[in-house]
Amino acid sequence: MVNFLFLVVFFLSSASIEDITTQIPSRTSEKDNPASFYDSQKQVFYLDTIAKGLDKPWGMIFLPGGDIVFTERNGSLHRIRKNADIIEKITGLPEIEAVGQGGLLDIALHPDFKSNSFIYFSYSKRVGQNYTTAVSRAIISGNSLTDVQELFEAKPAFSTTHHFGCRLVFKDGFLFFGVGDRGQMKQAQLLDRHNGKIIRLNDDGSVPLDNPFVSTENAKPEIWSYGHRNPQGLAVHPVSGDLWEHEHGPKGGDELNIIKKGANYGWPEITFGIDYDGTTISRDTHKEGMEQPVSYWVPSIAPCGMIFCNSTKYPNWKSNIFIGGLVSRALFRVELNLNIYVSEEKLLPGIGRVRNVALSPEGYIYISTESPGYIYRIVPISK
Amino acid sequence: MVNFLFLVVFFLSSASIEDITTQIPSRTSEKDNPASFYDSQKQVFYLDTIAKGLDKPWGMIFLPGGDIVFTERNGSLHRIRKNADIIEKITGLPEIEAVGQGGLLDIALHPDFKSNSFIYFSYSKRVGQNYTTAVSRAIISGNSLTDVQELFEAKPAFSTTHHFGCRLVFKDGFLFFGVGDRGQMKQAQLLDRHNGKIIRLNDDGSVPLDNPFVSTENAKPEIWSYGHRNPQGLAVHPVSGDLWEHEHGPKGGDELNIIKKGANYGWPEITFGIDYDGTTISRDTHKEGMEQPVSYWVPSIAPCGMIFCNSTKYPNWKSNIFIGGLVSRALFRVELNLNIYVSEEKLLPGIGRVRNVALSPEGYIYISTESPGYIYRIVPISK
Repeated sequence: MVNFLFLVVFFLSSASIEDITTQIPSRTSEKDNPASFYDSQKQVFYLDTIAKGLDKPWGMIFLPGGDIVFTERNGSLHRIRKNADIIEKITGLPEIEAVGQGGLLDIALHPDFKSNSFIYFSYSKRVGQNYTTAVSRAIISGNSLTDVQELFEAKPAFSTTHHFGCRLVFKDGFLFFGVGDRGQMKQAQLLDRHNGKIIRLNDDGSVPLDNPFVSTENAKPEIWSYGHRNPQGLAVHPVSGDLWEHEHGPKGGDELNIIKKGANYGWPEITFGIDYDGTTISRDTHKEGMEQPVSYWVPSIAPCGMIFCNSTKYPNWKSNIFIGGLVSRALFRVELNLNIYVSEEKLLPGIGRVRNVALSPEGYIYISTESPGYIYRIVPISK
Repeated sequence: MVNFLFLVVFFLSSASIEDITTQIPSRTSEKDNPASFYDSQKQVFYLDTIAKGLDKPWGMIFLPGGDIVFTERNGSLHRIRKNADIIEKITGLPEIEAVGQGGLLDIALHPDFKSNSFIYFSYSKRVGQNYTTAVSRAIISGNSLTDVQELFEAKPAFSTTHHFGCRLVFKDGFLFFGVGDRGQMKQAQLLDRHNGKIIRLNDDGSVPLDNPFVSTENAKPEIWSYGHRNPQGLAVHPVSGDLWEHEHGPKGGDELNIIKKGANYGWPEITFGIDYDGTTISRDTHKEGMEQPVSYWVPSIAPCGMIFCNSTKYPNWKSNIFIGGLVSRALFRVELNLNIYVSEEKLLPGIGRVRNVALSPEGYIYISTESPGYIYRIVPISK
């Protein structure tokens, strides 16, 4: 019986009979089936199904040997071995409270991962009867985490279960991440709390001495920028080295921002959106001393995950931004001219809620979708 | 780097250097270390660590080839391969709402699993803004579930997130399971809803024609017995063939019951417990037409999981009941004389919240704990 069970294994890394028979048209495609190729404005590609049947895959990293480690929001961490047909569980996570929009969120490698094996992960945790966002570091050792160390806990905690953030990115050796406003919008303007902020830490969790508010009375010294609603994308521009961010607006008003030290991005004092119940949050879209976005979306696309396509695999997409869309159920490709928004293309419409976008060391774009939960690799086809 | 990572693998199936170095005294033990043996009233044994670092392991089954499949309450399903050092993810579960006490709960094999590969699993799901208990069937095929079919949804759903039940057991070809009162205690006496009931279904989810309330106007035909609070253990007596159940009382009054067709177990009309806020729920412990428990616990042990030790591995524990304890953080061994409670022993005090007890085909008792999440095998030592 077991032999039979093992015959039909989970499919990875290549199209297969099962992919063909169960695929939803226009969702998956195969390298040997031109009819299933996607012919977008500047690039033909197909989708290589890396994993499926997942539960809201949220964050993803690539280990040096080629394995993928991904999070599921329910609080699971898994490894997909390169060229293998199984997904392996990684154990040893701290207590995670997978409630509402919370759970196990993003994951990042230390810049010197090859020598220290540090991974970083963000998640929601319970504090008494409330919830908050936390970031921990651990050593990944085989399929276990060891030396788990909590580096950050956003304060205060709230009873709400949404707007936790929390994408992680390293830049210049510092760890940056965004904490959402937890649905308490006025928090975003208050420097004595972490909610609605971009945070900058040293790799060991300590506060860099040149953070903008370290000398401001009552301000949280971890804050790098403020006035954010719910940041869900962070990426470093491959040429300028600037930190780019996107965040969810209310009903309309999703923003694409360049994050500057100590700057105020205005939420909820200024916004291009209105609240979900139709009420006005602010009549203002501009205000002295508050930053303007590079671009914004009305209606909302509900962006999640972001990369710059710093890759030779897709020459016509060079330096474009790729952003996942949740409510919009698509992948967005944004063209820039330096820091100026030029145009965008909606790729893979209807593929499902795109939760994450990642770039592998080989230069391939990976995306993950939820409901249903897939990880795909976008493979370019030369015309 | 990857080679290094793989050197330190996750430990399974045998004691190891890591177990020795990281163990909490009196939690784990080893076969070659008599100092770590547990010397209980009638049996010496040691604990073999099967898996650790898990997130609230809840249900467990043994596949014919020796693999273990277990649930985690967060909504994950995993396989531990026999004699392997990895935990593999099983994909393809339906949408599960891991909220409060809910999530992915129990799992059971079809009695003819060898020929049909059917597994059954219980879980909480969202219905609009409310939650309820559901049971589905699927074919397990390699590390995927296929042909997932929902067999049952408890009606009505409630906004509360506790008392979902839901242990699964087959008896005489029928599937039995318990649905909790969802914190709405009066539900348990109402036959027009599933809450606070033991349910009996055919293996395909249809209603057996000889269920007790199929001809009762407005009654849910799936009901087998009623007046239950939150059943968390179900097992079939190996000699009598009777269905035994235990359930959580309020503050005190956890019950061990023998489940009879159409019977009323009295909650909340009669109880040996009081409510958590100290108020009296009922002054009555007996009432005409309501069943009495075989035994009850005051104060509560918070029982979870149950087996009869129908095994030759532990001769002095023959036909004893083993029950996990959550709040009581121990394993309870209950001796019976036919259907009469004789005595009990508290094993492994302080081991952690014991969520589940299972008996392997070879006759070994397995337990799982949560916070921290372990699966252990209890290995007898001959004196």
